Amino acid sequence: PNAFLGSLPTTIFTTMSQLAADHDAVNLGQGFPDAEGPSLLIDAACAALRDGRNQYAPLTGLPELREAVARANARDYGLEVDPAREVIVTSGATEALAVSLMALIEPGDEVVLIEPLYDTYLPVLRMLGAIPRCVRVEAPDWHLPRDALRAAFSDRTKLILLNSPMNPSGKVFSVDELDFIADLVREHDCFAVCDEVYEHLTFDVRHIPLMTRPDMRTRTVRIGSAGKSFSVTGWKIGYITCCPALAAVIAKAHQIVAFSSAPNLQRAVAKGLDLGDDFFRDLAASLKSRRDYLAAGLGALGFPTLPADGSYFLVADISAHAAGRDDVAFCRDLVTQAGVAAIPVSAFYATGGAEPPRHLIRFAFCKSEAVLREALDRLGRTF
Amino acid sequence: PNAFLGSLPTTIFTTMSQLAADHDAVNLGQGFPDAEGPSLLIDAACAALRDGRNQYAPLTGLPELREAVARANARDYGLEVDPAREVIVTSGATEALAVSLMALIEPGDEVVLIEPLYDTYLPVLRMLGAIPRCVRVEAPDWHLPRDALRAAFSDRTKLILLNSPMNPSGKVFSVDELDFIADLVREHDCFAVCDEVYEHLTFDVRHIPLMTRPDMRTRTVRIGSAGKSFSVTGWKIGYITCCPALAAVIAKAHQIVAFSSAPNLQRAVAKGLDLGDDFFRDLAASLKSRRDYLAAGLGALGFPTLPADGSYFLVADISAHAAGRDDVAFCRDLVTQAGVAAIPVSAFYATGGAEPPRHLIRFAFCKSEAVLREALDRLGRTF
Ligand SMILES: CSCCC(=O)C(=O)O
Ligand SMILES: CSCCC(=O)C(=O)O
Repeated sequence: PNAFLGSLPTTIFTTMSQLAADHDAVNLGQGFPDAEGPSLLIDAACAALRDGRNQYAPLTGLPELREAVARANARDYGLEVDPAREVIVTSGATEALAVSLMALIEPGDEVVLIEPLYDTYLPVLRMLGAIPRCVRVEAPDWHLPRDALRAAFSDRTKLILLNSPMNPSGKVFSVDELDFIADLVREHDCFAVCDEVYEHLTFDVRHIPLMTRPDMRTRTVRIGSAGKSFSVTGWKIGYITCCPALAAVIAKAHQIVAFSSAPNLQRAVAKGLDLGDDFFRDLAASLKSRRDYLAAGLGALGFPTLPADGSYFLVADISAHAAGRDDVAFCRDLVTQAGVAAIPVSAFYATGGAEPPRHLIRFAFCKSEAVLREALDRLGRTF
Repeated sequence: PNAFLGSLPTTIFTTMSQLAADHDAVNLGQGFPDAEGPSLLIDAACAALRDGRNQYAPLTGLPELREAVARANARDYGLEVDPAREVIVTSGATEALAVSLMALIEPGDEVVLIEPLYDTYLPVLRMLGAIPRCVRVEAPDWHLPRDALRAAFSDRTKLILLNSPMNPSGKVFSVDELDFIADLVREHDCFAVCDEVYEHLTFDVRHIPLMTRPDMRTRTVRIGSAGKSFSVTGWKIGYITCCPALAAVIAKAHQIVAFSSAPNLQRAVAKGLDLGDDFFRDLAASLKSRRDYLAAGLGALGFPTLPADGSYFLVADISAHAAGRDDVAFCRDLVTQAGVAAIPVSAFYATGGAEPPRHLIRFAFCKSEAVLREALDRLGRTF
């Protein structure tokens, strides 16, 4: 077997979800909502199974979904997009990310990343023979270190992989930060792959796609996720927006990796995207109140939380209770002793680099208030 | 962009389906049925959307589907399989093939293939840096050239990629041929990746998985497809059966390429697999009668067809009508002039190797008899 893949650890999300199940813990680890998506989507997905369109969707996606993605780009960000040549539907954002990187990278290319980062980024890059250049935003304020970022770019840089709103930090990059990044991309004549799966999950700030910044239209691959935008993480429908030249190559990677995605789910997601502003405003408001509820509860128990303007996640500082344990040991004890699962933030850093923080753990707040209350009650019995 | 992917042509299936749509042709090109899958599956997929399980499925698939795959392996082939450690659910057989090859191959490994072959095999291998060694089964009887096959194996061979029942030839490998291949795999201490998506679509012969041959249990990766077995090609649910050591590495590739697949479709497919013998016997009988109908019609029009014991496909000889045109030109004229789409068989050969046959075209017979009749009527007006 392939030595590199063989050496990869099981993803921390699977490990912690399994541990949570084994110990009957409240699972605030893996990021998925415990409420179902809008019934309009579920109904649409069901109806779409019944009118004779269960065979292969076109390679780049059903026209109705590509058109809905184009409409959403225009409505949400003023981006004019050709649905026929600038949108590709994928089997989730994970596939979108993999095929975008396959399409752009040649072995030996350098890729700039910002830690803490989502745990599939580095394995995919390494499989493609890319050389990662990691820069860190530092807790507690997740400030972007501009000099370090500039120094990470070189004439071998092929792209920056940018995740905003960011997992696990909850950071939402500002216009100013995005313009700084856009300048670097332009200066180094390279690309940006933008994982924007939490685009609609921001609180009191607006998500701004890097693609909207000057000259970024043809240099940016923008990735969205129906799972995150409509609380159906199992459906695995993602979508890529990018210029025709890049889309043509990404489609080739998609052709050999997955070919197409389920038509009924695509058709339901198209209806979801047309729900528009009100729907996303309500979703964000509801998540915000749960973020605030969890933050207040954790704070009261001696786990101060860091700012989180977007995503499903809140990072908490365990220093007051750690008693010498690092975040990994602490999370293990938290499951087995308190019955609450969280994710150690050190899992979001490259191994073999500088020491990651060991005093931070990530909680998912995309759960019902009853579930969050139960988690806080359990923590309250231990701390 | 990645030079190799950028250079890949659009798949012939997309090209011909598009051409068929543009010319309002009867599409006997891309292999998908025009009848929907069993209503039991459609109903199950719909019901499964409604009971609160639309979030991430486990990485290797829902337990109910993995257990159904294990039961089907036992029932259909006497293979005892551990559903927890020997089954991985994928986003279609295309993803299954990609992740199996990722898991096994290191750059520079040699891979033995048998032409004519499905058109994603070579691009995936090339992307992974493998060196293909192609052997041909030759029309009209698709006889396996044993000496050539033996000569294609070397001490650098990592695996043979075997497709039985075979697309586009319709060949179903015999026990004797499989034992010969198993001997080579054992002698060269390598593996076999077996694309068996048409396993249930055989006519008067039985499909035998290479995995059932002596010593092949731990050397074989067996790939099945709900799309093909249940006439829902759009659903993109595939499944891999292999020993735990290989499954562990394939799961890592799956983790970074797709992570998981839609729970409602997985649950429906689990029900489908339990339909068992009667269902598959009826499906095969129905396909056989359509194969025979198309073969008789094509024969009467001067397009003799080659033997096809399995799959959706029938290969016809165009020599009598070609008038100097090769199969590609002939297929183009067939769409634009006769209003019938087929696939040139030369598209199933590596470019840059020995000349492929230029007198064969492939028809899909997985269509209603009315559609086949319309295609034959149209052909009858031209030939
Ligand atoms: C695909 S499982 C991981 C879900 C997620 O995005 C997270 O928990 O960070
Ligand atoms: C994924 S489109 C190709 C369908 C097919 O298997 C074929 O036509 O050979």
